[in-house]
Amino acid sequence: MKKINLLSLSSILFIGTMAFVAPAQSAGNLAKVELGKKLFFDPRMSVDGTISCNSCHNVMAGGDDNRPNSVGVNGQHGGRSSPTVWNSGAMSVQFWDGRANTLEDQAKGPLTNPIEMGMKDHAAVIARIQQIPGYVEEFKKAFPKEVKSEKDITIDHFASAVADYERTLITKDSPYDLYMKGNKKALNAAAVRGMALVQSVGCTSCHMGSNFAGPALPVGSGFFQKFPVYPGSDFDKKYDLVKDQGRFEVTKNAADKNTWRVPTWKNVAVTAPYFHNGSVKTLDEAVKVMAKTQLNKELKSEEVNDIVAFLQSLTGKFPEQKMPRLPATEGKSFF
Amino acid sequence: MKKINLLSLSSILFIGTMAFVAPAQSAGNLAKVELGKKLFFDPRMSVDGTISCNSCHNVMAGGDDNRPNSVGVNGQHGGRSSPTVWNSGAMSVQFWDGRANTLEDQAKGPLTNPIEMGMKDHAAVIARIQQIPGYVEEFKKAFPKEVKSEKDITIDHFASAVADYERTLITKDSPYDLYMKGNKKALNAAAVRGMALVQSVGCTSCHMGSNFAGPALPVGSGFFQKFPVYPGSDFDKKYDLVKDQGRFEVTKNAADKNTWRVPTWKNVAVTAPYFHNGSVKTLDEAVKVMAKTQLNKELKSEEVNDIVAFLQSLTGKFPEQKMPRLPATEGKSFF
Repeated sequence: MKKINLLSLSSILFIGTMAFVAPAQSAGNLAKVELGKKLFFDPRMSVDGTISCNSCHNVMAGGDDNRPNSVGVNGQHGGRSSPTVWNSGAMSVQFWDGRANTLEDQAKGPLTNPIEMGMKDHAAVIARIQQIPGYVEEFKKAFPKEVKSEKDITIDHFASAVADYERTLITKDSPYDLYMKGNKKALNAAAVRGMALVQSVGCTSCHMGSNFAGPALPVGSGFFQKFPVYPGSDFDKKYDLVKDQGRFEVTKNAADKNTWRVPTWKNVAVTAPYFHNGSVKTLDEAVKVMAKTQLNKELKSEEVNDIVAFLQSLTGKFPEQKMPRLPATEGKSFF
Repeated sequence: MKKINLLSLSSILFIGTMAFVAPAQSAGNLAKVELGKKLFFDPRMSVDGTISCNSCHNVMAGGDDNRPNSVGVNGQHGGRSSPTVWNSGAMSVQFWDGRANTLEDQAKGPLTNPIEMGMKDHAAVIARIQQIPGYVEEFKKAFPKEVKSEKDITIDHFASAVADYERTLITKDSPYDLYMKGNKKALNAAAVRGMALVQSVGCTSCHMGSNFAGPALPVGSGFFQKFPVYPGSDFDKKYDLVKDQGRFEVTKNAADKNTWRVPTWKNVAVTAPYFHNGSVKTLDEAVKVMAKTQLNKELKSEEVNDIVAFLQSLTGKFPEQKMPRLPATEGKSFF
């Protein structure tokens, strides 16, 4: 994964109507997407049958779990807040620390994380799938050239199907989107003021681009930033912002200490609580914290309100989906 | 709740084409059902935001969690296996021990059970709902005469909406249903033999009626039976069948010791593991255990196979559903 730093991007500060970043790979065929949706919702992919991808990345909500950290098998808590799965296909790297280049790589991680889905290894996941006849048939349809029988199913097929389902999770037509298309009534006055403020205050020096998560970069190139840029404020302690060193925990490069993938603003109003550790419960407080820690500015409450109004206008329309039907484990139980 | 005993029903032993037991109450208006669906899927109805009704009664699967017991907040395990929510509207009492007369009464229980959803009390549930503007609007639409503002929402409205959604969860057109309608190819030879066996062996003395859960009874009148009828077999110890005293735990009447609501056979093949404690992992073993403990019979393996084939033919078609969209907790988090 390459790291892009802020200064080299100073020429592309913008906020605008740029088209949604195209998912890096095609959404695949329908059978694959439908299979991926089932796997995404299937708690049998966890060691005790209680946790699915959707448990922490709830697509019926904002694509996260609205918790400071996620709860995996046996009531175990992770240390970070789930990023949203909505529009995740537009992110050039995955996880808060960008440790996965692709949605495929990301999808493999939680399965075997002992505090998330807790499976012993990927072979154990595949062994489960091989015992569910409905899944075997669906893998054959989704990968007709590669999967002729249950023995041909691999974790890469699993990840490919889940990732292609995730690439369909795109929200559109937020009030902001409609405004930029010419409907000047789509935003209220506060949101319009907030839109100007996020530029003048400096927020969009990082939260730029159509996904408000940085410039369009090739898959595998992450847009990482320091947080806090201005350490030492009361917020550091109050919200425990410094302890988790972010990307440094992956790379062990000193330059990566306390750097993080810049998260999207899309649907930010429906994905509280905020930051990598979910320590901030409300959007207005998150705005204040960011202004102070990243730009060394103290915003007036009217400014905070306007910026919040703008951020609320970035909530898109969530497309309707058919509820998946999980293939049965006929006449037996894994648990 | 009245108790119906076996002998008084000897005249209505049958297995046949009787219409599906009509839900006791109307499915209500569409707004109420849609609201109930959202509440059913919403983990914010639990104390830490991790457990929804659907966590243990997974409608994307067989309406249960395919586990011996369910896992609630903080990784706590209950003592019983989740009954299926599919076709639960056709049951005349709810829970394994029939302690709730209606789906409405049932829906209120897990919310405040400390090892299930863990809410302090029903007021805490309503306080959450009142802070979610999208829900307030939906309660107004679902109960236009009763709910004019958030202050009018009660736990009875919650329960009514959830129960009316559950009443829509009906499976139809199982191979058995199609066979009884005249399609003689819908069942294979083993299933046809099994259909005869469940009568001749005696299973249908309890698993009778269109829901294979007993005779049609008014709501609130449970069809309870002793289990085991013939105690002392090796199975008692092997599967720990006797310790949980079932309905006695509710009524403290000696006559209710180790009695249970007779569960439905509909979709039984997709709701392993089996029995109140989910101690039996496979359907064929469940058939053997029941024959021995309830009828003092040891079945030949061919008989078991035929009965299993018949039970598999009771898996119906699960209707397509639209995935609910949960109203947002805008700009803030409960957790």
